[in-house]
Amino acid sequence: MTTSVGIVTPRHADFDSPLTLRSGGVLPAYRLVYETYGTLNRERSNAVLICHALSGSHHVAGVYADSPRSTGWWDNLVGPGKPLDTNKFFVIGVNNLGGCHGSTGPSSINPETGKPWGSAFPFVTVEDWVETQARLADLLGIERFAAVVGGSLGGMQALQWTLAHPDRVRYAAVIAAAPRLTAQNIAFNEVARQAIMSDPEFHGGDYYAHGVVPTTGLKLARMVGHITYLSDDAMGAKFGRKLRHGTKQYHWDVEFEIESYLRYQGDKFAAYFDANTYLLATKALDYFDPAFEFGGDLVAALARARADFLVASFTTDWRFSPERSRELLFALMHNGRSVSYAEIECPAGHDSFLLDDPQYHAVMRAWFDRIEV
Amino acid sequence: MTTSVGIVTPRHADFDSPLTLRSGGVLPAYRLVYETYGTLNRERSNAVLICHALSGSHHVAGVYADSPRSTGWWDNLVGPGKPLDTNKFFVIGVNNLGGCHGSTGPSSINPETGKPWGSAFPFVTVEDWVETQARLADLLGIERFAAVVGGSLGGMQALQWTLAHPDRVRYAAVIAAAPRLTAQNIAFNEVARQAIMSDPEFHGGDYYAHGVVPTTGLKLARMVGHITYLSDDAMGAKFGRKLRHGTKQYHWDVEFEIESYLRYQGDKFAAYFDANTYLLATKALDYFDPAFEFGGDLVAALARARADFLVASFTTDWRFSPERSRELLFALMHNGRSVSYAEIECPAGHDSFLLDDPQYHAVMRAWFDRIEV
Repeated sequence: MTTSVGIVTPRHADFDSPLTLRSGGVLPAYRLVYETYGTLNRERSNAVLICHALSGSHHVAGVYADSPRSTGWWDNLVGPGKPLDTNKFFVIGVNNLGGCHGSTGPSSINPETGKPWGSAFPFVTVEDWVETQARLADLLGIERFAAVVGGSLGGMQALQWTLAHPDRVRYAAVIAAAPRLTAQNIAFNEVARQAIMSDPEFHGGDYYAHGVVPTTGLKLARMVGHITYLSDDAMGAKFGRKLRHGTKQYHWDVEFEIESYLRYQGDKFAAYFDANTYLLATKALDYFDPAFEFGGDLVAALARARADFLVASFTTDWRFSPERSRELLFALMHNGRSVSYAEIECPAGHDSFLLDDPQYHAVMRAWFDRIEV
Repeated sequence: MTTSVGIVTPRHADFDSPLTLRSGGVLPAYRLVYETYGTLNRERSNAVLICHALSGSHHVAGVYADSPRSTGWWDNLVGPGKPLDTNKFFVIGVNNLGGCHGSTGPSSINPETGKPWGSAFPFVTVEDWVETQARLADLLGIERFAAVVGGSLGGMQALQWTLAHPDRVRYAAVIAAAPRLTAQNIAFNEVARQAIMSDPEFHGGDYYAHGVVPTTGLKLARMVGHITYLSDDAMGAKFGRKLRHGTKQYHWDVEFEIESYLRYQGDKFAAYFDANTYLLATKALDYFDPAFEFGGDLVAALARARADFLVASFTTDWRFSPERSRELLFALMHNGRSVSYAEIECPAGHDSFLLDDPQYHAVMRAWFDRIEV
């Protein structure tokens, strides 16, 4: 029987020693917001870190007491009796640095100025996120994770964990991810960034001071992103050419249902997400490339990894296609790593990693079941 | 030996009888700008109409005397000795109604107000374009075309010609097109439209009166469009993850070469193309669906066609994939039509139809050679 982890409460950790980032930027101090589910065992051997994707957060599972519809973004995967079973594992979700859900980010107050960081917030990278997550692990007394797990940009963090801290990760699950973005991936990110930065209410990133938000640009960015999260077929099955009014109206309002869906998704996102965080996260995606320092040689780049891997991809994911996961698979295998690879037939495209597809969850359950704690 | 058609001069035709459009809108009068190459034979049997795509024009081949770099958009295909040989055929290119290259469009003066049409310009459809092209053919004394040819949105017009005027088209080439857009296609168009319409300088479509142009929105629209014109592989081969400065700069300026390319393409386009024309053309794309009045039955919809068809697609075209061309192929074959089908391996994606790929041009040449005039 599976149930929810129930009511959860975010916690936070404040770090007072300065952090130098890959970009050269320095944060004098920072806060990380996180949640935990389950109980850390006496041996401290059952901790699993969940890394979030572009628009995710630390709120992975459960609900907040004051908001019954606030279910965590991976609640279908994480909980008592669920594939990532909180009866067995101690699960940690953390909001990444630069985020907008409580961890220090561009909308936080810069102690030097007493105003929001805005455009002065330094660039953050996947490598930086892993370093801050490692500091949080130190604080929680976790020397070694049973597993580090993530989908999409979260999968990149899981991979980076195995490279930066090979002795601190026993198992790593890299789901619907890629070892680095393609030119097309970067191109979509660039459109999103240009949409935000060209919004007159962006004010060079310092919109907080003007009491406005670049919602128009952020909405456009989300609309573009959303198209890439879904497969052509899934959109076709859900919306096809369905007309809102049954007949063509010849107007600029919603004509086809897909337009309504996209506008709604864009508006919803722009109402709560911080534009600067979105910008920073797309740059972190672009920059991530463990092979870069190895002349593009991914096999050489992954030689440091020691973890036992799960690499999973979805047949209809065209943002990070199975081909990209297979690049990772082959590079890990060339290094003699133990890798389970699942190419899952799920019609939903990139978003599949968030769904409770039976085949996908069966793979996840079997993989987590293998992990001894 | 192949040569250029050389110096060309656009001509125009003015139509003074009112035109009622599919949308219900009425144009009291309108102008069509066109070019011709080659000579109409005595039997008037060698005319070929070229229909243009989203951002095309009547300027298909040759150059303008005052602008040596103004080569027509399909100059590699059309000319003496070229696949569409102007020694044999009389070729016509026409700027569609609603365009911004000289035919009556939103930037033209509305005779009733003495000001640009702007937001008052009526919606135009593929069906309307074909009707106005037919009026132009009447004027030029062309009862029946040897062929009507188009790529992408132009291919939809070629198809519509065979349905609206089956007796006036002997051969039809529908290249890199689709019988109707998918939800994903519409979604990309909707992002482009929202980018333009949410630009503060759009002024509800009446920006002419304000002396401004919504270049920011139009640039974004073109950037999104451009991604869908190229294949992932073509972008990868051309740009990959090439850094502009060799190392990461951690700034918002161009970091990867693909960003520079996209920005450049967007700026270039926004500097000359009319935003209202772009909006109208994306709507025409969305609306086109010959099967709509037949309950979605494409076979029934195409029963009227009498032409001898060429359907061509490109393996790497993900905007209008080969699968979409095959839908058209099968529906035509079910109707007993003669159809040549070519699925061409060209790495360039949707844009392949504009290139002089040897396999593609060999197909085109062989097909045009078959046409007796």
